[in-house]
Amino acid sequence: MGGVVTAFDVVDSLADRIVIDLSCNAMSEDHAQEITEALAALPGVDVRKVSDRTFLVHLGGKIEVSPKVSLRTRDDLSRAYTPGVARVCRAIAANPDDARRLTIKRNTVAVVTDGSAVLGLGNIGAAAALPVMEGKAALFKRFAGVDAWPVVLDTQDTEEIIRIVKAIAPAYGGINLEDIAAPRCFEIEARLREALDIPVFHDDQHGTAIVVLAALRNALRVVNRPLSECRVVVCGVGAAGSAIIRLMLPEQPKDVLAVDVAGIVHPDRPGLDPNLMWIAEHTNAERRSGKLADAMVGADVFIGVSAPNLLGEAELASMAPDPVVFALANPDPEVDPIIAQRYAAVVATGRSDYPNQINNVLAFPGVFRGLLDAQAGDITDEMQRAAAEAIARVVSEPNPSFIVPSVFDLSVATEVARAVRGAA
Amino acid sequence: MGGVVTAFDVVDSLADRIVIDLSCNAMSEDHAQEITEALAALPGVDVRKVSDRTFLVHLGGKIEVSPKVSLRTRDDLSRAYTPGVARVCRAIAANPDDARRLTIKRNTVAVVTDGSAVLGLGNIGAAAALPVMEGKAALFKRFAGVDAWPVVLDTQDTEEIIRIVKAIAPAYGGINLEDIAAPRCFEIEARLREALDIPVFHDDQHGTAIVVLAALRNALRVVNRPLSECRVVVCGVGAAGSAIIRLMLPEQPKDVLAVDVAGIVHPDRPGLDPNLMWIAEHTNAERRSGKLADAMVGADVFIGVSAPNLLGEAELASMAPDPVVFALANPDPEVDPIIAQRYAAVVATGRSDYPNQINNVLAFPGVFRGLLDAQAGDITDEMQRAAAEAIARVVSEPNPSFIVPSVFDLSVATEVARAVRGAA
Repeated sequence: MGGVVTAFDVVDSLADRIVIDLSCNAMSEDHAQEITEALAALPGVDVRKVSDRTFLVHLGGKIEVSPKVSLRTRDDLSRAYTPGVARVCRAIAANPDDARRLTIKRNTVAVVTDGSAVLGLGNIGAAAALPVMEGKAALFKRFAGVDAWPVVLDTQDTEEIIRIVKAIAPAYGGINLEDIAAPRCFEIEARLREALDIPVFHDDQHGTAIVVLAALRNALRVVNRPLSECRVVVCGVGAAGSAIIRLMLPEQPKDVLAVDVAGIVHPDRPGLDPNLMWIAEHTNAERRSGKLADAMVGADVFIGVSAPNLLGEAELASMAPDPVVFALANPDPEVDPIIAQRYAAVVATGRSDYPNQINNVLAFPGVFRGLLDAQAGDITDEMQRAAAEAIARVVSEPNPSFIVPSVFDLSVATEVARAVRGAA
Repeated sequence: MGGVVTAFDVVDSLADRIVIDLSCNAMSEDHAQEITEALAALPGVDVRKVSDRTFLVHLGGKIEVSPKVSLRTRDDLSRAYTPGVARVCRAIAANPDDARRLTIKRNTVAVVTDGSAVLGLGNIGAAAALPVMEGKAALFKRFAGVDAWPVVLDTQDTEEIIRIVKAIAPAYGGINLEDIAAPRCFEIEARLREALDIPVFHDDQHGTAIVVLAALRNALRVVNRPLSECRVVVCGVGAAGSAIIRLMLPEQPKDVLAVDVAGIVHPDRPGLDPNLMWIAEHTNAERRSGKLADAMVGADVFIGVSAPNLLGEAELASMAPDPVVFALANPDPEVDPIIAQRYAAVVATGRSDYPNQINNVLAFPGVFRGLLDAQAGDITDEMQRAAAEAIARVVSEPNPSFIVPSVFDLSVATEVARAVRGAA
């Protein structure tokens, strides 16, 4: 079948059967499936379990909890645990601020989800969301030395989520909300920001907004057009789209048109929720209505955080000259970037197999590194804009294929942390 | 002052002052205090901050979260995080049991407290309890390779604690309740056991009961008397005392007398809560009443999990010949072990500076190792008794100063895990 066998391990050999662990390189998931089916079709062969490299990476989970202190001797034990620990507890009881000095709180972030809007998979629940939150925790440590812990909640009740996060907060120096569906995410975030004395950051909103703003800054450098002269279409007004608009507005674009499944957002549209009403009142200066195609006519910038294949060639052709197109829907963008390139001066997607990947990994590790180092009690828009500016500045000479730094450029997190700390 | 200066670091030098970091060995906390006061009394010297080795151990917390997977290349990232992780999420959504295979759930325990009964410090709250829970998490990894995470809850409402633990449970393979005050702890534990499909273990109850039962088994080997011939006094009927009685009863001691501040527990005593009523109905065959001193007359075994200095020489002298005395109140036992040794054949305490330390570290790491390896959905009394038996068996030839293994005997956790797995 064209698969390359790399290992053949006999696991068990009985009178009537032999159990073999067969490792094989395949070219694609489909190819692996074909090989599996060919094996299963052989007389006497029974395929018991098929795994692949991706699944093997996740076996047993992707993070672990390790002691930072020695526990080798009786003295170690007496200091790190009883009886010595009692003095540390009493010190914190007497002076709660000491928790930032004497516990993990100083360097620890909760990655909280209710599993209601996981990646592009939708509402898959807490257990199925755990691999993503573990991955996020791993990235936090890898890119910024932050200890992050997945908190996957088996409830999707707004009030209960708020109560739980408030209750678990003492151990954490920050809260990263993740993959919580809109509009619930807005209320949860706003209420927690109000209630807690540690920063609360919804990565799907603010992480995305920071990286988009950074990329947009460099894209506009490439086309040599200031934001104040740009009409910007934001397609998708959920968590990400709303946050992008809110973070961008103070930089005074010429106009912003927010578009969702019901068309262009304007104040007279019936049924707007509080978030959409706010956006209606702060965008669309000319009070336009219509569909996405109407919004696109003459637009300088398209930012899609919506759904696959919403944008056709006609709409691209109707944009202003040398437009910027960010088609960020995952895993399939609003328009094929190959097609978009025929019309746009700069194209970005959320995918790693095209240039200009808009990836939140550029923001969240450094943002929390900065917040923790500053012992910040809150995260402000100024800190987020400083983070965006820091990411943009890492690219000294942007060009159409290089508007954001590589996710493996470790200076990004350092620069973002410095900027956030400075703003804090 | 007799302190030994080990380091003298100039941290800052200004026109009008010099800042020095002075390290010094002292003989005791009091001695350190005397040295500090002597320094502060010197003309021109201002003591800004005093730290000691115990506090230095806790600086910045005692545990960290680390990736177990490589995140060095683009391929690594694509498999551990997006887009590869989506397939793993979908697999768990389709088959929830896969969470034990593909996430941290397989090896992870939550150490949950409300900070209401921390060590002997009482109700110090969530933040001040965190150093203990971190220490516990460190011990879990050190002794049994278990990933444990501190969940310190800023609420002491029974219903809310139950709701929170249910909500966070998907990420965990077991729940270790810790330092939650009685009688709230009984209801929380019972309700969570009923609700969850993972084992729930209140260490202050069951961990203590397991180690006490193990120690008692070997103490009775030393005095060559079967439990069936022993009258046992259990002083203190909170979390630990109740669990000790419940775990011991099926082994059929001759009789058990439970004693609390109001005296011997018997069914006619007014105001018994459900836990004490159960104990009243299952102990005290002769329906005795009276105080601790009355209970002690002729007793073969005293197990104290109560308060300092409750037991005098007269009560010790009134016990049966060659009695066993476990004075486990922390940090100060019910009776000075030096005095107890004049009357008892075997003495144990919770202290590390006397022989026979009854330390929960002997139980909880191995118990959870066994539960996780067995993918157990519950913890039964049989598993707990198997754990006690395993701890006892590690001491092949008990003598009056050696009825429990050393906490550094790594074979203990292995044996306990094996026993629990077998029972599961």
